[in-house]
This record gives sequence, C-alpha cells and structure tokens, in this order.
Amino acid sequence: MAADGNVRFKPVEESCSSEDETDKVTPFIAKSKSKRGFKYEKLIKNEIDDNLRSKIEEIGRKNGKPVNHFLKRGIFFSHRDMEKILDSYEKGESFYLYTGRGPSTKSMHIGHLIPFMFTRWLQEAFDVPLVIQMSDDEKYFSEDLQNGEEPVSIETIREQTRENVKDIIALGFDVNKTFIFSNFEYMCPEYYKNICRVQRLIKLSRMKIVFDFDDNGNIGKINFPAIQAAPCFSSSFPHIFHGKRDVPCLVPCAIDQDCYFDLMREIAIKLDCKKPALIHSKFVPSLVGGVRYKMSASKPGSILLTDTNEEIETKKYDNDEIQSDDLKSELIKILKTIIGEIRQRRKQVTDEMVKRFMTPRPLNYKYKHGSNEIL
Amino acid sequence: MAADGNVRFKPVEESCSSEDETDKVTPFIAKSKSKRGFKYEKLIKNEIDDNLRSKIEEIGRKNGKPVNHFLKRGIFFSHRDMEKILDSYEKGESFYLYTGRGPSTKSMHIGHLIPFMFTRWLQEAFDVPLVIQMSDDEKYFSEDLQNGEEPVSIETIREQTRENVKDIIALGFDVNKTFIFSNFEYMCPEYYKNICRVQRLIKLSRMKIVFDFDDNGNIGKINFPAIQAAPCFSSSFPHIFHGKRDVPCLVPCAIDQDCYFDLMREIAIKLDCKKPALIHSKFVPSLVGGVRYKMSASKPGSILLTDTNEEIETKKYDNDEIQSDDLKSELIKILKTIIGEIRQRRKQVTDEMVKRFMTPRPLNYKYKHGSNEIL
Repeated sequence: MAADGNVRFKPVEESCSSEDETDKVTPFIAKSKSKRGFKYEKLIKNEIDDNLRSKIEEIGRKNGKPVNHFLKRGIFFSHRDMEKILDSYEKGESFYLYTGRGPSTKSMHIGHLIPFMFTRWLQEAFDVPLVIQMSDDEKYFSEDLQNGEEPVSIETIREQTRENVKDIIALGFDVNKTFIFSNFEYMCPEYYKNICRVQRLIKLSRMKIVFDFDDNGNIGKINFPAIQAAPCFSSSFPHIFHGKRDVPCLVPCAIDQDCYFDLMREIAIKLDCKKPALIHSKFVPSLVGGVRYKMSASKPGSILLTDTNEEIETKKYDNDEIQSDDLKSELIKILKTIIGEIRQRRKQVTDEMVKRFMTPRPLNYKYKHGSNEIL
Repeated sequence: MAADGNVRFKPVEESCSSEDETDKVTPFIAKSKSKRGFKYEKLIKNEIDDNLRSKIEEIGRKNGKPVNHFLKRGIFFSHRDMEKILDSYEKGESFYLYTGRGPSTKSMHIGHLIPFMFTRWLQEAFDVPLVIQMSDDEKYFSEDLQNGEEPVSIETIREQTRENVKDIIALGFDVNKTFIFSNFEYMCPEYYKNICRVQRLIKLSRMKIVFDFDDNGNIGKINFPAIQAAPCFSSSFPHIFHGKRDVPCLVPCAIDQDCYFDLMREIAIKLDCKKPALIHSKFVPSLVGGVRYKMSASKPGSILLTDTNEEIETKKYDNDEIQSDDLKSELIKILKTIIGEIRQRRKQVTDEMVKRFMTPRPLNYKYKHGSNEIL
C-alpha cells in the first residue's frame, strides 16, 4: 500500500518488490495478508519440474548422495538456468556454488538453515567448490536501527562475523572445498575490479527502481548490491580460479534474494562473463503468524540454533496448518536432533578452523573447460 | 545559467559548484565570462597571509630549500588548517602529503605541474611522506565519452596509468618517501574499511547537492568521492603508518578539488580522525581564451609535457595580459628549460622504478605523536 492509499503494482522484471493485494516480497521485507500464505506461483522464475529434479537427483546418486528432501518436497521450487549448469556439468565442465550471510548478533534460525543445508548437499552431490560471502559491509551500512541504538562499529561487526562463521562451519562444510570470506577482510584488487565493472553498468535510477532506494540512504547501502553481485564472477577469486572469468556460478538462495542476481544476469554478457544460475527456496514460515510471514531473527516466532531442547518444546506452534499433536511431537523430535547435532559440532569449532576457512587459498576441485584444465 | 534561464546561486558551503553571473567552478568544469578571469576572492577559503607564508618559508629555509615561487607569487593562495599543520610540525609532530591524478591518454600539461611541483617542494621542505592516488577507477566510471567512443576497459586504463606514473616520477619525487598507488591495484582491507566509513556517513541526497549528481549517473561515479576522500585517513596505509589513524594529512590541490576534502572534514570527527588540511592553487590559464578558462588537456591551448621545443615556440599566446614580446620570449625560454628537464628524466624512468614507487612498503620518515614514536 503506497502512502496515497493506493495499491502499487510493480512488475517483477523491473523491481524486486513483488507486491500485490496480499503479498509483499523484497530482500528487506516479506509478508502476506492471505491465510494461505505467499503466492509462490507468482514469485516463481522457472519451475523445477520432475525432469529437472530427476536429473539433479541422478547426479547426486552417482556421488553416493541420497535424494534431498528439500528438493523432493518442493522447498526449492524455482530456478534460473539450472539446465545449463547440468548440461555443461555432464560434459565434464565444473561450476562453483555461491551463497552468503549478513552477520548478525542474533543466532541463526532454522529458516537460515535451508539454503545452507541444501548448498552443502549440492557441494557433496556435485563435488564443487563453494564461496560464502559474509556481508559485514552491508551490516555496517544498515540504517535499520532501533530507537536510540548507536550504529555498530566495524570492530564489533568483525567479532559478530567470526561467531557467525563458526555457526556456518558447524553445518559441516568441507574446508578443502569451501572459502568463507568477509568483505572487509577479503577486499582485494581482483574482487574490487569486478565490483567496479558492475557499478559502471548500473545507473542510480535503475538501482532505485529495483531496490526501492531513495535519496535518504547512505551511499554505501546504495552501492552494496554490486558487492553482493561481484562474487558471481569467478575472477573475483584468483586463488581459486586462477584468473578464469567464465567458471559458471550457481547461487542457492531464498526467492527474495533473486533480484540481486537477476540484475547481475542482465549485465553479465557485457562483462564477458556467464550469467549466474540460481536455485530458489520458499520461506520457512514464522511460528507467529504462520505462513503469512517468513521466520525472522529480529521477530518472535523463530526456532534458533541456540535453543535448548526445553526451549524447542515450549515454543508455541500456532501455525493453523499443524493441528495434529502427533505431527507437532514428530516435528519437535526432528528439530531436537538437527539442532542437537549442530550444537555439538559448534562446540568443536576453533579459531584455528575459522582461520583456515577464511584464508584465501586454492580449493581442491577439478575444473575442465575448453582446452584448459585446472587440477 | 539554469535551464529556466535564471542564474543559480549556490553557497560554497553546500555545493562545490561555485556559480554566479560570470564564473562557474566545479571539479568537472571551470570557466569565467569575465575578461579579468576567475574571481579568486570568492573561491578563497582562508587567505595565505604574509605571516603564514613566512612561517612556511622559514621551515623550508631550515631544510635548505629556497623560497617557493608558487607561494611567493600567490599561485597557492588559499588554505584550510595550514596553521594547525605548522604548529604541530613545530612541536615535532609530522604529517603526510596526499595528492593525485586521474590517469588519461592525454599528456600532462603545465597546469597539472603546479600541484605536483609544489608538493615536491613541500615534501623536501618538511621531509614528510607523500601518497599519490592514481584514480583509475574514476576514469573507468567516467561517462564523458565523445560521439561513438567506447567506454574504456580496466586493462587499457592500467596501461595509461603506468605511463602517467612515469610522468609523475619524472617530476623528481624521492622513492624512499613516496608511495604512488592505483585504486584498482592497491585496494585492500584497511583502505576499503575507510571507504566504507566515509560511505556510511554520507547520504545520497548530500552527494547530489555537493557534486550535482543525478539519477542518470552510474553508481560507481556516485560512490567515487568516498574513494578520493579515504586516503586522507592515515590508517588507509598500514604499511606506512602501522595502523595509526591520526597522522595529520595535508592535501595540495587546485581550488576546484576542495569540495571532496571539505566533505571529508565535515565527517572526520565522527570517524575519530583528524580533519585533512588543504593548500589550494589558482588555475593555470588556457592559451586560448586566456584567464577565462583553466588549461585543459582535452581542449586546445595547453603546453604539454610532450611538446618539443619547436611546438612550445609556435603555440599561440593569445592571452591579452601578455603583450610584450620580451615577456613571451622569456616565458618560452623558461618553459623549454622546465619541460626539457622533465623530458630528460622521463626517458630514464624504467618499469622497475614504477614497480618500486607502487609497491606497498614502509617509507623513510620519522613520525612522533604523543607517547608513540615511529622511526
């Protein structure tokens, strides 16, 4: 609803704000007025059909990975160019995975887990390298402050980032195939050049349409989408891809993040790079308000990775769709197991491990493309 | 003159566009309609009076440097906080110099020489380190293309930058006290963090007022002033200042560049850094149009560093102020000497020397501040 009381309709192609009578979905807000929840059929880019799903599962099986339940259950429901990724993979050409997290004082919740758990499955199923961006600079530019709250310092964010990296490591990624980087700590010439390449091709007017930015924002915030976009280009990581600009990139993410990468796809050809492929998940509903909201760490209604067994049991499931007590008990049992395992692994993550994951270094994977081969 | 035919007046404090009935001065354009040329009395920040001039000259004399003619003749006519720099210098606290150049295919002209020659004098008179920014990223973001001209690639700018660095080295800077850096090649975590610190404190609306940006510009261009500003903070150069954030910075520049640093002075206190001090020069007038225009490499009427003796002789001096043939002959003689010397030194500048100047490394200077001392 716009300030003048009129409902605004924005075509998804132009703005990442998908908004109609009942739903609003942007990278900054996601809510639905409908009891049935988000109309994913409107958010979908390309459907993951049975054919595509089977193809992904088949590759997984070859590498000894059982079928992924997020894929089977349609939690990952949408994509861009997944067929291209699979076709070239089957011809022996590898790709890399790129996902990320904005560091926060708040613990990760099970909504955050979905893209990471699926990314891990993809990494193991395809045996490919993975880069994870910790967008500490975005956090720094954030103007979403509570009353009287001071803007956070770079030094404070640095500490939060390290704790968040430990959470991610606890999800079980392979250190030999995974590079976790903070923008503040990793910034280097090759990465910066790609950021500039993106910046030059996007007008401020376009940025305002896509992200609903206005003139009151700080210039860092307005610039940030270029920084989220640049790791889609393999030359941002010379220690991994040795200067290659055309290693294909696959981004697993929730559907509300699509706009960053869609913008990137728009300009990739001008940069002599491949368009990043995407695979999109639905949201995990909040415990409060059910399917009308996505789970959010800054609001009540989340199952956190730091929750104890007792807390998991007492959190109120007021989701209308789950009326069976048996189902609720089953869900509590599963959550206790998943979170319990992560809790155990989290305890074992040392500063030394953080350092290893975050050190720019070659990763252990094979990449074949055209006449070149990197082993 | 605005599109509606009305003259716009903008206060210098708010916009760097100083514009009235006859003069317009911004970092992007400088012209006067008056036969008497730019009204420097309107552009001045703080006058360099006899007292201040004597103080600077006295320090120079102690270090064996003869009086500088740019200072004596009022070519450097304006400043911000020069007294503070001198006061703390006399107490034994050093500072550093920061100036820069936007790389260009065009040869440097004698207008470019003024800040560099004066910077060299300051470096020798005060025995202080100097950082020189090659703003290759700004060049890349430039949208000031001729008809049908293709935007330039990063690789092409890299070559131009190296040639430009050779021009600067030929002016005689001391490699032990001078770090020349390209933004593309130097970008690193500490520099990037300072850029982000600046970005967070400047709203887009402010940037538009100060630099006359509009929504049609690319986002890199809008972001660039933060990149020109960040080297004012000594922590951008950990290899020189070992993490110190409060080494004072003095920027010698032409008066049209003041706005970048004025913005920086506005936010320095919030960043727990010192306000950069400035010393401003007048423009060298163009040979065509005389004092109404500054000399510009992209327009006729320049004496270039690549000019031969014959070219210097035949370039037409249509400056009304110089009517005496004797004066013109004297000027030609002086220019031949200066440019001849630079031409000789330029021939001796090797790739190896470029590499030495551009390698991040400690510089040879003493810095004393409070209880700390860096030798």
